Amino acid sequence: MHCPDQRGIVTNITKFIHENNGNIINLEQHVDRDGNRFFMRIEWELNGFNIPKDKIAEYFETLIAKNYQMRWRIYFSDHKPKMALFCSKQMHCAYDILSRYHAGEWNVEIPVIISNHEEAKVIARQMKIDFHHIVITKDNKDEMEAKQLEILKKYEIDFCVLAKYMQILSDGFVSNYPNKIINIHHSFLPAFVGAKPYHAAFERGVKIIGATGHYVTSDLDAGPIIEQDIIRVNHSDSIEDLIRKGKDLEKIVLARAIYSHLNRKISVYNNRAVVFR
Amino acid sequence: MHCPDQRGIVTNITKFIHENNGNIINLEQHVDRDGNRFFMRIEWELNGFNIPKDKIAEYFETLIAKNYQMRWRIYFSDHKPKMALFCSKQMHCAYDILSRYHAGEWNVEIPVIISNHEEAKVIARQMKIDFHHIVITKDNKDEMEAKQLEILKKYEIDFCVLAKYMQILSDGFVSNYPNKIINIHHSFLPAFVGAKPYHAAFERGVKIIGATGHYVTSDLDAGPIIEQDIIRVNHSDSIEDLIRKGKDLEKIVLARAIYSHLNRKISVYNNRAVVFR
Amino acid sequence: MHCPDQRGIVTNITKFIHENNGNIINLEQHVDRDGNRFFMRIEWELNGFNIPKDKIAEYFETLIAKNYQMRWRIYFSDHKPKMALFCSKQMHCAYDILSRYHAGEWNVEIPVIISNHEEAKVIARQMKIDFHHIVITKDNKDEMEAKQLEILKKYEIDFCVLAKYMQILSDGFVSNYPNKIINIHHSFLPAFVGAKPYHAAFERGVKIIGATGHYVTSDLDAGPIIEQDIIRVNHSDSIEDLIRKGKDLEKIVLARAIYSHLNRKISVYNNRAVVFR
Amino acid sequence: MHCPDQRGIVTNITKFIHENNGNIINLEQHVDRDGNRFFMRIEWELNGFNIPKDKIAEYFETLIAKNYQMRWRIYFSDHKPKMALFCSKQMHCAYDILSRYHAGEWNVEIPVIISNHEEAKVIARQMKIDFHHIVITKDNKDEMEAKQLEILKKYEIDFCVLAKYMQILSDGFVSNYPNKIINIHHSFLPAFVGAKPYHAAFERGVKIIGATGHYVTSDLDAGPIIEQDIIRVNHSDSIEDLIRKGKDLEKIVLARAIYSHLNRKISVYNNRAVVFR
Repeated sequence: MHCPDQRGIVTNITKFIHENNGNIINLEQHVDRDGNRFFMRIEWELNGFNIPKDKIAEYFETLIAKNYQMRWRIYFSDHKPKMALFCSKQMHCAYDILSRYHAGEWNVEIPVIISNHEEAKVIARQMKIDFHHIVITKDNKDEMEAKQLEILKKYEIDFCVLAKYMQILSDGFVSNYPNKIINIHHSFLPAFVGAKPYHAAFERGVKIIGATGHYVTSDLDAGPIIEQDIIRVNHSDSIEDLIRKGKDLEKIVLARAIYSHLNRKISVYNNRAVVFR
Repeated sequence: MHCPDQRGIVTNITKFIHENNGNIINLEQHVDRDGNRFFMRIEWELNGFNIPKDKIAEYFETLIAKNYQMRWRIYFSDHKPKMALFCSKQMHCAYDILSRYHAGEWNVEIPVIISNHEEAKVIARQMKIDFHHIVITKDNKDEMEAKQLEILKKYEIDFCVLAKYMQILSDGFVSNYPNKIINIHHSFLPAFVGAKPYHAAFERGVKIIGATGHYVTSDLDAGPIIEQDIIRVNHSDSIEDLIRKGKDLEKIVLARAIYSHLNRKISVYNNRAVVFR
Repeated sequence: MHCPDQRGIVTNITKFIHENNGNIINLEQHVDRDGNRFFMRIEWELNGFNIPKDKIAEYFETLIAKNYQMRWRIYFSDHKPKMALFCSKQMHCAYDILSRYHAGEWNVEIPVIISNHEEAKVIARQMKIDFHHIVITKDNKDEMEAKQLEILKKYEIDFCVLAKYMQILSDGFVSNYPNKIINIHHSFLPAFVGAKPYHAAFERGVKIIGATGHYVTSDLDAGPIIEQDIIRVNHSDSIEDLIRKGKDLEKIVLARAIYSHLNRKISVYNNRAVVFR
Repeated sequence: MHCPDQRGIVTNITKFIHENNGNIINLEQHVDRDGNRFFMRIEWELNGFNIPKDKIAEYFETLIAKNYQMRWRIYFSDHKPKMALFCSKQMHCAYDILSRYHAGEWNVEIPVIISNHEEAKVIARQMKIDFHHIVITKDNKDEMEAKQLEILKKYEIDFCVLAKYMQILSDGFVSNYPNKIINIHHSFLPAFVGAKPYHAAFERGVKIIGATGHYVTSDLDAGPIIEQDIIRVNHSDSIEDLIRKGKDLEKIVLARAIYSHLNRKISVYNNRAVVFR
């Protein structure tokens, strides 16, 4: 939840939960002083909670949120979000995600993989995930995106992950999944936006390279940053070395971003992501 | 504050502050599930608070803390803590601290420097800090520590910083300042406890070296860890290189530990330090 | 190559290569001043080299190495090393290695996987790698290790990777593959040797956790360190969080260690690994 | 030294040194494959060297460098370089440098401090360093830079360090000290060039901030990068927190850049810095 900051918000929300017999197991709040905005993430046990599960949203809106012009979401931990995996020929991030999926590392379901290449076909079949090979060209982009949206709808997808998808999504597509499409960019944004960041990093002679996991917005590489990390490089690293070292970063950073999203740790406001612990 | 975890603590504390017209500006809580212990740090504005400043502690104890068997402390931000600086011949940490002091980076007063060497004498005089040269030997340790304690008392010292002091404090001395003596150890504890950690790190051929800022307890190098950081090294680094690289680490890690202590971010329980953001 | 340091070694070796029409494409040298030992890694193109490929070792030994009491190895880049993968139920490192293998990231062949569990069976079959399920108990250890050695011999294995294998190898086994068995330990050695390092790290309240890739020697967790890395943790991380964060570290650190080994970047002397760039 | 790559360079140089009875104690080479350029740094002992010290440059040029169109420099370790320190009101980097100077950490002499403010005056006097207070305005820039150059000449300055100097040097000024003016920029370049990078980083919501030590060229913030490092930040960090955390980074990164320069580890070509170990 987030809203303009004022006195008493924490008190009233914790009271609401406590008086209705909820047990708070986690609470993290943050006030953005510059923007005078209050952010909070609160987690409580429903066992014995007085308000029925399907009424909580209504009660919370009426009794609390309305008074504070709050923007908020509620999630139940027994819901397993559905993720669509978009990939390309570069499969290292996709393999990493699928390995975690296979190992049951995350509370997620991946019913479908979409790709403009066929590299992921075999592993999709092995893991019993539906695979859609959709080749997007300049001429058929509108049509193919419509087809993709249909697929996402059919599988009741909650969020999308672009695992080195290498295609630019149209604004129309993005507007269907606000703060629900996660991309990995292979630089520490805002350095080296756009294509070929490792080549640009090599040219500039930087001593660190990075990767950035972010939500996709209509403005390319400018969406809210969820996670970043870096690795040291030096003059002896060729562009190929940067690419190789960067791949490991990309995997880890994307995985962390997905983890934060899956655990509902992220609150976005004003194009910035508050990522709770 | 920390206490055995139970329902309603956050609610009751925030209610206590809110109903008495306090404005909460920061709240961070943590529950140690394994130990079933609740930790919280809460910061509020006293401007307009109904309970007089000198009565807050009493009221809080009576109305809240007692019910939860809470261990807690209250600090007022207009109080400037008094720090004693202990140093030796190795002055890099001391210089760093004194530079920050001179620049007004911290809310602290340093009225006195104590050293078993005279290296700090000139800078102490320049900065108008009293300097005590106390040479501790095997034979006079009890006597000299008594003298040190007298000095600390005279200057009304709140906490001590061992900036490469290189002397082991007796249990008796430490017991006077529980969780109030900060030491910097030049390894990522618990690796390389004791003397000459850089030599040991070189021998072992490690690829990272570290530094640890911790509270001093009677058990050498085993006190609660406040802050740690590392730097990569490689085979081309000699022991001298490790020492040189390590010095920078030591400065930064010690400074961060002092900052957390000064800003009352640390709660110690069961020999572990909860360091709030 | 490494040998006692003395004048003229670099000159004589580069002369040997140059005069026989070899083109040096990489040279890195290091002198351990404390041990007075010279290390060098040199890479040259054989195209047009005067000495036949199968005679180079003999000539080098006779004309150069003998004079310096040198210990050395020569590798040809068209040789693809054969690696045996040892794993267990914890498959994250194995999946990561197999993903890289599948993507052709490394110059390696993996003909066989050995495990005391069956988790790797399916993926082994999918990737057409032979799988051997060898269950080691206290009673059959000698016999089973003999069987493993037989398998390694049959597949002409060059080196072994213990990807969370979780079994302690006997000295006899290890002596067959000196500096040819790579293990991943889930702590920044020498901190937290032995079992359950994440539990120990949690107990100690450390602010960083690490992972170490090292060669296996008869002394458990004390072999030459190839690569280490760390990640920051804090009080809000439970043991499960440490394990989760640590898994990513383990994958990356083990992969980097394997990469260095595969590219013949490592020279071991006195239980320390010189890892060239 | 650096030159177009070709066969035999290493051999001929090491032969030149060895045959004249020099003992090579360090050699690091690098070939930039994309630019086909060879770089080398070689260090040898002059004790017993056949060529007189003041003739080495001439002989090397004639016998070696000329044949390879080499660009090269020779330095003698008994020469103590002279550094001019430029600073402003923000003294944290200057204090750090002066502390190291006072402790004898570096092989350097600092005869003069130049500042557009008077904050450094007292410490300069205490350390017996000449202090010049030169106030640069839009109207007097040419004149004042001429005065600065005169001072640098008078003190026989080898290189300049801009320790948060906050003034832009004219092209004319810079051209007098090519790759001899080191600046610290408070971002991981090329992200956030120009003024107020911490404010920009806050606005963008990045999860890491950085600092960059680089040589000054006529193109602002685009000179060869010597050293970079980063620190993690999060949503709870205000701009003031970023500035505070960044200060520590700036100190360390600038110090490392100075160290590399002082130890002649840096070779610049095509606006990129090769920084040897």
